[in-house]
Amino acid sequence: MLREDALRIITETVHHLLPENAVTESLKEINLEGNVTVVAIGKAAWRMAKAAKEVLGNKVIKGVVITKYGHSLGKIETLEVCEAGHPVPDANSVRATERVLEIVSDLNSGDTVLLLISGGGSALFEKPKGSVTLQQLQDLTEQLLRSGADIVEINTIRKHLSEVKGGRFAQKVFPARVISLILSDVIGDRIDSIASGPAYPDSTTSEEALAILDKYKIKVEDSIKKELQEETPKELFNVETKIIGSVKLACERAAEVASKLGYSTMILTTTLSCEAKEAGKFLVSVAKEILRSDRPLSKPAAVILGGETVVRVTGTGKGGRNQELALSAAIEIDGFEKIVICSLGTDGTDGPTDAAGGIVDGTTCKRMKALGIEPVKMLLNNDSYNALKPIGDLLITGPTGTNVNDLVFLLVGR
Amino acid sequence: MLREDALRIITETVHHLLPENAVTESLKEINLEGNVTVVAIGKAAWRMAKAAKEVLGNKVIKGVVITKYGHSLGKIETLEVCEAGHPVPDANSVRATERVLEIVSDLNSGDTVLLLISGGGSALFEKPKGSVTLQQLQDLTEQLLRSGADIVEINTIRKHLSEVKGGRFAQKVFPARVISLILSDVIGDRIDSIASGPAYPDSTTSEEALAILDKYKIKVEDSIKKELQEETPKELFNVETKIIGSVKLACERAAEVASKLGYSTMILTTTLSCEAKEAGKFLVSVAKEILRSDRPLSKPAAVILGGETVVRVTGTGKGGRNQELALSAAIEIDGFEKIVICSLGTDGTDGPTDAAGGIVDGTTCKRMKALGIEPVKMLLNNDSYNALKPIGDLLITGPTGTNVNDLVFLLVGR
Repeated sequence: MLREDALRIITETVHHLLPENAVTESLKEINLEGNVTVVAIGKAAWRMAKAAKEVLGNKVIKGVVITKYGHSLGKIETLEVCEAGHPVPDANSVRATERVLEIVSDLNSGDTVLLLISGGGSALFEKPKGSVTLQQLQDLTEQLLRSGADIVEINTIRKHLSEVKGGRFAQKVFPARVISLILSDVIGDRIDSIASGPAYPDSTTSEEALAILDKYKIKVEDSIKKELQEETPKELFNVETKIIGSVKLACERAAEVASKLGYSTMILTTTLSCEAKEAGKFLVSVAKEILRSDRPLSKPAAVILGGETVVRVTGTGKGGRNQELALSAAIEIDGFEKIVICSLGTDGTDGPTDAAGGIVDGTTCKRMKALGIEPVKMLLNNDSYNALKPIGDLLITGPTGTNVNDLVFLLVGR
Repeated sequence: MLREDALRIITETVHHLLPENAVTESLKEINLEGNVTVVAIGKAAWRMAKAAKEVLGNKVIKGVVITKYGHSLGKIETLEVCEAGHPVPDANSVRATERVLEIVSDLNSGDTVLLLISGGGSALFEKPKGSVTLQQLQDLTEQLLRSGADIVEINTIRKHLSEVKGGRFAQKVFPARVISLILSDVIGDRIDSIASGPAYPDSTTSEEALAILDKYKIKVEDSIKKELQEETPKELFNVETKIIGSVKLACERAAEVASKLGYSTMILTTTLSCEAKEAGKFLVSVAKEILRSDRPLSKPAAVILGGETVVRVTGTGKGGRNQELALSAAIEIDGFEKIVICSLGTDGTDGPTDAAGGIVDGTTCKRMKALGIEPVKMLLNNDSYNALKPIGDLLITGPTGTNVNDLVFLLVGR
């Protein structure tokens, strides 16, 4: 019963977040004026563009889809489909981006660019600014990485050296307007950092970009310094942005489904980031509080979390962060009835395995032991996959085509 | 402001849990009939007995206080004060326990034994059963420990070999009644395991005790086997039990104070047990959810937890689990305003330090760095004490004389 409910929550949440469903659903609520040009970038670009074309039909007069090599699923009427480099942008990224700039160059104020963004968009949608070359940009990125700069710092520099990032794409689209629909894989949803914000006012400054070079003592050609000095747009008047998929929305959807199934529900956090197996332990201590004392929620209860845990690898086993969280939780709820804990990657993959995550309850350890599997030993060896697989406690969805991080939840029955 | 509130929550919670206050408060609600005999066992026994005597005055006709060496604070009128061995019971434990059995032997049905229990009671209140000697009991315990038996298993055996544990003390007091007031340091408050439950029906059986010997292949004299076969009481009709201090009550009191101060409050768990620094990270992810999205509580909010985390020691620094949790949280909230996180041992000590724990906020790391202290390095070296001390972010209460595990909470301001 609890397990059935858990699977239902997972199925409905993932379904809701599939690129085509998220786009179709959100287009119902948006009024698109004039001719529509579709620009889709990211790993889910093809599926998002295909859905948009199906909903909008002849309103879409042209467009470009830029996705990762191997991610195109064929032709889409009136759209050009390109494949390019990811995670490092390549010549095809630049070529496809130039093509996008061409087709938006003659738009009028009554027209609309529907910008469909998914994970990977930052590498796939790139054209170095002014005299900067792709090679220079790649060299600089590598230097920054080696010097210990973090991703926020690297992106601050990148935005100031790009023709399309940091809001500059929206400037080029003007006077037409840009409506961005975003499938976000960035925890915390800082919109200006998703795909480096091609149609969103930039919160970073030239001054900051130059200070980062100073901080890490990185020498660059004067031409690059000059380009960095030109400020990215801090205000844009032709953009509208809607996040149509994110870990937040995943949590909210899961909470909605759980609620509909009769559970009192709570979203505890959407920025989970600690160690996977400790998160599992922590969650069990919350589950037990509900079980014994009906707090912080009364039974039946669902506590929902999103984010991305990490695994501290010390063993040689096979697994992923979601499976490890689940196995750790299983050990802590051994023998307890009426608790189910699930953890899964919304993209359908978890670590180097064919599973999305795990689903465990108070009988999980017993069922392992019956097969001669020692749960604690497996956990210590980071071998959660081989612990959960033989007893059928893996969650296997196959690749979902969407990625909004991980969904973790516990159910406590009455 | 948030800090002041945090300190107020701590002060009022600890005050409420001091042995003398907990006893005094609870005696207001209890109607004691007839003559009262006080039996106080545990590390806080003296303070609990002293308070009881002050409240009850001449109603207390006699009594025995058994506490750990060095824990007596002087004479108490009409009571005998004894000191004995802890954590291993010694001859003085047995002698004092025999004295207790003497003074309760002639009580009538109108009389009351006020049994005051605190941490350490299991070692201090002990008399081996029948022909079993203290030496035999100690040898057996050691064998069990070496063989890998856990504390629940060891206590199952101990209860069946004791004249006073596992409810047998209450049997000896009959027909007088026993009112137990308990300061619990056992997480989860299983009353039959607090001080091995001298006045509480035992949930373990002879059969289980014998099976444990089998499981670990431990050979014992026939005399011991014979004693093990005698069952502990499963029902007692002359006992009343009240937990007057525990991690649960600590959390509830803290929630009450926070609520009074205007915070929306939630007790997330009272059985926290994961790694200290991961608990810190986890809590920050909850704090940020509240800060950004007003869920699971709306601001200003207090999330309260109790339990006992663990430290995975990899460094050579000085600290404790509470200080480590606080330092880890400080790193995660660096730069965030309006979040305060506290963690402290309610006994006033945390690890081998003079601090009870730590109190941190979004300025903690900045203040450390201003003194040349690198927070991440200190955490990796388990050196939380030396990180928090120079900036005044330690919580120092001195020994409180009470121990109901750790209190952890976060406050998020508006």
